[in-house]
Amino acid sequence: MKAEKNFSPGLDGIVAAETSISFLDTVQSEIVIRGYDLIELSKTNTYLDIVHLLLEGVLPTEEEKRKIEDELKTEYEVPQEIFNILHLLPQQTHPMDGLRTGISALAGYDNDIDNCSVEMNKNRAYKLLGKVPTIVANSYRILNNQQPLTPLQDLSYSANFFYLVTGKKPTPLEEKIFDTSLVLYSEHEMPNSTFTARVIASTRSDLYGALTGAVASLKGNLHGGANEAVMYMLLEAKTVAEFEELIETKIYKKEKIMGFGHRVYMKKMDPRALMMKEALKQLCDQKGDYLLYEMCEAGERVMEREKGIYPNLDYYAAPVYWMLGIPIPLYTPIFLSSRTVGLCAHVMEQHANNRIFRPRVNYIGERNLTSKQ
Amino acid sequence: MKAEKNFSPGLDGIVAAETSISFLDTVQSEIVIRGYDLIELSKTNTYLDIVHLLLEGVLPTEEEKRKIEDELKTEYEVPQEIFNILHLLPQQTHPMDGLRTGISALAGYDNDIDNCSVEMNKNRAYKLLGKVPTIVANSYRILNNQQPLTPLQDLSYSANFFYLVTGKKPTPLEEKIFDTSLVLYSEHEMPNSTFTARVIASTRSDLYGALTGAVASLKGNLHGGANEAVMYMLLEAKTVAEFEELIETKIYKKEKIMGFGHRVYMKKMDPRALMMKEALKQLCDQKGDYLLYEMCEAGERVMEREKGIYPNLDYYAAPVYWMLGIPIPLYTPIFLSSRTVGLCAHVMEQHANNRIFRPRVNYIGERNLTSKQ
Ligand SMILES: CC(C)(COP(=O)(O)OP(=O)(O)OC[C@H]1O[C@@H](n2cnc3c(N)ncnc32)[C@H](O)[C@@H]1OP(=O)(O)O)[C@@H](O)C(=O)NCCC(=O)NCCS
Ligand SMILES: CC(C)(COP(=O)(O)OP(=O)(O)OC[C@H]1O[C@@H](n2cnc3c(N)ncnc32)[C@H](O)[C@@H]1OP(=O)(O)O)[C@@H](O)C(=O)NCCC(=O)NCCS
Repeated sequence: MKAEKNFSPGLDGIVAAETSISFLDTVQSEIVIRGYDLIELSKTNTYLDIVHLLLEGVLPTEEEKRKIEDELKTEYEVPQEIFNILHLLPQQTHPMDGLRTGISALAGYDNDIDNCSVEMNKNRAYKLLGKVPTIVANSYRILNNQQPLTPLQDLSYSANFFYLVTGKKPTPLEEKIFDTSLVLYSEHEMPNSTFTARVIASTRSDLYGALTGAVASLKGNLHGGANEAVMYMLLEAKTVAEFEELIETKIYKKEKIMGFGHRVYMKKMDPRALMMKEALKQLCDQKGDYLLYEMCEAGERVMEREKGIYPNLDYYAAPVYWMLGIPIPLYTPIFLSSRTVGLCAHVMEQHANNRIFRPRVNYIGERNLTSKQ
Repeated sequence: MKAEKNFSPGLDGIVAAETSISFLDTVQSEIVIRGYDLIELSKTNTYLDIVHLLLEGVLPTEEEKRKIEDELKTEYEVPQEIFNILHLLPQQTHPMDGLRTGISALAGYDNDIDNCSVEMNKNRAYKLLGKVPTIVANSYRILNNQQPLTPLQDLSYSANFFYLVTGKKPTPLEEKIFDTSLVLYSEHEMPNSTFTARVIASTRSDLYGALTGAVASLKGNLHGGANEAVMYMLLEAKTVAEFEELIETKIYKKEKIMGFGHRVYMKKMDPRALMMKEALKQLCDQKGDYLLYEMCEAGERVMEREKGIYPNLDYYAAPVYWMLGIPIPLYTPIFLSSRTVGLCAHVMEQHANNRIFRPRVNYIGERNLTSKQ
């Protein structure tokens, strides 16, 4: 009687889309982004290269890259009403909820919102890439009674973003590392937030709505929220020994340790984590203080020994952002900002070749009740 | 090299969750809601019965029903700041986008937003059921330069909602039919918006975020947006013959005809559509004017003959809402308001027994490109 079918909780192993955007090749241990290895890209290219690659399909020439940067700079500004809206939110509003409301409100400024052609969506994507860093930083500032900052046109895209979230201009090393973190966060196949965006877009709903849903998804601590949770966990301990004990206690209590594990990598280290681990090392070198690095490594060892589970990107992005002086509540919003380009690429792909997502269920409830009164 | 796997576009036929909330039994032609047949419920019960059934698992006693109604009435009020936010949106903002922004902003008023226990979520669900009709109606009014309306405590839940969206108190027949439409829209297994809400909730993100995503999903015209599209199509024609011609032309142009077709019912009539068709008949009887009814029937016949495709709920809900005097841009927001209870039930179920949704892809893009410069 019931339509019992095989059921894979969390759609583990189920293919949800055909894509030419990215792919986690676990056999060759490669994060493929439009044909390139993301880890290689993160060594040789910058975030704006990846923006061009994801939205246009190819890496930019030097001239194209300058053009993108110029275009994004003209889009930094955000309508004053968006800030007024953020001012009206209760002060306890979670920064991701503020960001969600801000992006949602931005939809009203689009004069042709129902037009989901590739060209229109691409235009929107560039506009959003200009504005999201400004909204990320200033929604946090407004919710914390600080004056909004005005983007600085004379800095690079990533340096300006760094300035907005820290209030200071980055050193060359800081700029490089922050940019690399944006590259690493930019796109990653079909995580929950990307899937959310595609599911929403498949009703022919618009890019802003898809992005709003993705912000909601990314907020959860099983997903983007993990980077903030990692930092709070690191701050709970003062020494390497205390951190080891903390993790051991959590394991004993059968809690999930934030920053570890991944559906696709399973019991291997997320290659992006390794890149951020190196960046953390560089920042520690600079400062001559290795405590955070040593704590993280110790945590890694405990998890390997006790659970055979390895760090994901969020585990090392968190202490890197800490050393860069970024307020913790901005870690997940920064992740969202960087991922905006990947999300836009996926929504464009979904709209261009669409079928509505509409799965089924296994019904395990009651049957044949009657309310006849 | 590629992890090619079977791929079902739109997750057609794929089971995404185990649920005891609802099930479309196509074999027995029954929409099962917690064991009951939705069509039977729509004849014998009211929307508040369904609210209790979905959130508490059982139909309410008379006393429980009164208690729910009293509780919802205490939740009608919406913070003034939410209206101030809506005032700040550009006037061209789509009503579903206004609603999305309003619900998103509401999250900031929750003092324990990270607590996703069943009890907390249930509390939130009742609060939202009180407030969403007020936001639905007044976000539309504000975007149209009309004064917000104050909910009327002396009316039933559905009569008040009717008042808010039309500005007048319903006749008993109008109240009955509007309430029935809310029952029919309340819950329907795993449509795109419900799926969106569960996907978002599975990162442990909160109910407001899940609902915000669902609003974004429902806006699309392949989903909730269809009821408005149906009405605009009906209004394009003045006579039965013109409407037939309109549909024939669209078929010829290979356009999708809004209000027809359904992933699960496939080539059968949506049983909910039949209920709304009867309601439309009653409203036409009342008015002594059968034009809309005859146009709809004619459209049905053309689609059956030319495509073998049958109406879904939106096809008959649209002319019913028209005859009830509801502004067209409120049709989809009303659908969302009614579905809020189903969405909340699904988020509660997801949070209570969770695994993060994280599917895979079939990668069809390039490989082995190198950016070495
Ligand atoms: C990323 C994550 C959500 C993937 O989830 P998933 O693919 O559904 O994997 P599961 O939760 O089913 O985990 C499989 C097993 O490993 C364990 N596990 C996975 N991640 C764990 C973690 N971080 N800490 C402790 N145990 C973990 C699970 O308890 C489970 O064990 P069991 O089989 O004995 O029950 C999961 O690893 C996690 O919750 N990590 C912490 C949050 C995080 O860092 N998220 C950011 C991801 S980029
Ligand atoms: C509801 C709907 C999205 C289901 O989509 P789906 O399960 O993916 O079905 P498909 O779009 O693959 O349709 C299957 C076939 O029926 C046709 N079809 C489905 N609905 C149609 C419609 N409303 N008008 C014309 N043709 C339709 C499709 O063109 C397709 O034909 P093909 O096989 O020759 O290409 C779809 O029927 C639709 O778009 N309906 C109109 C919008 C609507 O009323 N939505 C509200 C749903 S409650």
